[in-house]
Amino acid sequence: MSRFITPTLAGLRPYTPGEQPPVNRRLVKLNTNENPYPPSSAVVDAIRDEEWRLQLYPDPGCAALRRAAAWFYGVAEDEVMAGNGSDEVLFFALRAFCDGGHGIARADITYTFYDTLCQLLHLPQRILPLREDFTIDPADYRGLNETIVIANPNAPTGLALDPEEIGAIAAANPDCVVIVDEAYVDFGARSCVPLTRRYENLLVVQTFSKSRQLAGARLGLAIGSRELIADLERVRGSLNPYNVSRTAQAAGTAALYNRGYFEETCRQIAETRAWAAEQLAARGFAMTDSLANFLFVNNGRMSGAAFTEALRRKNVVIRYFDLPRIRPWVRISVGTQEQMEVLLERVDRILQEG
Amino acid sequence: MSRFITPTLAGLRPYTPGEQPPVNRRLVKLNTNENPYPPSSAVVDAIRDEEWRLQLYPDPGCAALRRAAAWFYGVAEDEVMAGNGSDEVLFFALRAFCDGGHGIARADITYTFYDTLCQLLHLPQRILPLREDFTIDPADYRGLNETIVIANPNAPTGLALDPEEIGAIAAANPDCVVIVDEAYVDFGARSCVPLTRRYENLLVVQTFSKSRQLAGARLGLAIGSRELIADLERVRGSLNPYNVSRTAQAAGTAALYNRGYFEETCRQIAETRAWAAEQLAARGFAMTDSLANFLFVNNGRMSGAAFTEALRRKNVVIRYFDLPRIRPWVRISVGTQEQMEVLLERVDRILQEG
Repeated sequence: MSRFITPTLAGLRPYTPGEQPPVNRRLVKLNTNENPYPPSSAVVDAIRDEEWRLQLYPDPGCAALRRAAAWFYGVAEDEVMAGNGSDEVLFFALRAFCDGGHGIARADITYTFYDTLCQLLHLPQRILPLREDFTIDPADYRGLNETIVIANPNAPTGLALDPEEIGAIAAANPDCVVIVDEAYVDFGARSCVPLTRRYENLLVVQTFSKSRQLAGARLGLAIGSRELIADLERVRGSLNPYNVSRTAQAAGTAALYNRGYFEETCRQIAETRAWAAEQLAARGFAMTDSLANFLFVNNGRMSGAAFTEALRRKNVVIRYFDLPRIRPWVRISVGTQEQMEVLLERVDRILQEG
Repeated sequence: MSRFITPTLAGLRPYTPGEQPPVNRRLVKLNTNENPYPPSSAVVDAIRDEEWRLQLYPDPGCAALRRAAAWFYGVAEDEVMAGNGSDEVLFFALRAFCDGGHGIARADITYTFYDTLCQLLHLPQRILPLREDFTIDPADYRGLNETIVIANPNAPTGLALDPEEIGAIAAANPDCVVIVDEAYVDFGARSCVPLTRRYENLLVVQTFSKSRQLAGARLGLAIGSRELIADLERVRGSLNPYNVSRTAQAAGTAALYNRGYFEETCRQIAETRAWAAEQLAARGFAMTDSLANFLFVNNGRMSGAAFTEALRRKNVVIRYFDLPRIRPWVRISVGTQEQMEVLLERVDRILQEG
């Protein structure tokens, strides 16, 4: 830290992203919820079309990408905004709708990046604890005076509310924006996008990092009423008007039109998740009913940190969270069937050793 | 605008980026200072290596890219930070070093994005007018109490200070960060990077959008003392830890190592600039002594807006600024020799018609 840093930043705890070890055949990487399948050949072709014109700025309006998203989701083009990953979209949304006097309301156990963003932006947070079984109690989300942020499915639990319940939350807080972070929705939960036309205060955030194989390309979307989207565009235009690269726009557009590959890979991941969950349950693991591309499990014997470390020594990378309530738990991304078989073989060795 | 927007944003004027028309053979695009040459084949190869692993997050630490930048610039790896374009780097820097009580000092005529950022961040601005000939008077930059932002060469004038003059400004303001935006430095001016080891308060910002043919990939750098860089990393880690895509990291790394192509294209652009400047001078245009990849010229007869519009009707796109002091002026990016010949032919037709 330099002596020039502004005092309001000096106490900030930066977000800790999951480890990103270099690509390595020996390592089974199940720690950051990436898709185990590569992008489709249509996506690769779309990127190749851009390679020789990378000297030109991208379209700051992201028109082709927004058209594709509008087609896929059945909304209008001006009901969509693109960002450099959903993290940037979330930042723009909190910058647009919150300030020091109007913060956010969120669950105690959820995506930890919300807390980091609030610290940086100096936004107050109302923390609404999950129930004992890690589900959200919708009754807690009535008559609030904050921007409400709900990850649905939630991370790292994988548990989802029905869109009807989120619609009821939007209806019960008509003067607050309700942000639904659907990073993991495509693996089995139902999206709130259709509800954005009914609730002017409902904003859905999505990412191309999970179900669309593009974590490395950086692309996220916001979908909501044209007024909410105009607010986000105002922030984007002032902070980073060329935020989405040519490659990300082209790749995202191709991925949206390539519905078959998207649906097939999501289906495969849900199938592998069900198989891996059954295998872990048979070994005595407790777990939530995850609808995401990860499992949230508790081995019942050692801490999440110790279990993660034991697997790391056997070349499998998963993630634990040093946070109250979930220290015994770990999050395991759903990889390919082959990767999950390696995981289980290593788990068995740990259980035998332990 | 929605009724949910935070009051502090309601009055914001968003930045207006230059027009980005679809790629079109008939249009000669000289309005956003892009490089007229495509990326090198080494850069294209590096992007291709990433295509099939885009499902994996990029390295949040940008290690390979920072190693390449450290090699190219003769600094240490922890004296470099990467951003999603230099606009994002500038935002991180203003967020790190400024607040409502400590704003920026800048020239009246300079990159208009600084003003936009200050509006969004609610930073006060001390405006230091350029001299009549659009040069900076270094005497104005002594004993200030703001973060100093100097585009060098300046935009849209193309005029540059010597690094020694900027070093003297850093020495004269030891308690303020001096940000030198070197977006255009590679086309003929001298970089302040070597001075970052002498002045702990000097931060150099660079972009890959101009001299390295990667405007479409989104990549910028900050170079400074490890303490200043640590401050920027703190902001980056909280706002957008995966800000630089796999393709941008790979492309930027290859572009840094490919020094030959970089030097050859910069040299070619400087040569074309000299030729075009001579041609425009012969037609009676006034101009600054631009060291950037653009010319800043005044036709002496019609407003910059009218001249830009006349060229637009002839399929040449340039840029004017609706700002005090420079309304008679236009900025013309330096393209290929062939593009500049088309420009001059259209200019001649306008002069004949007028």
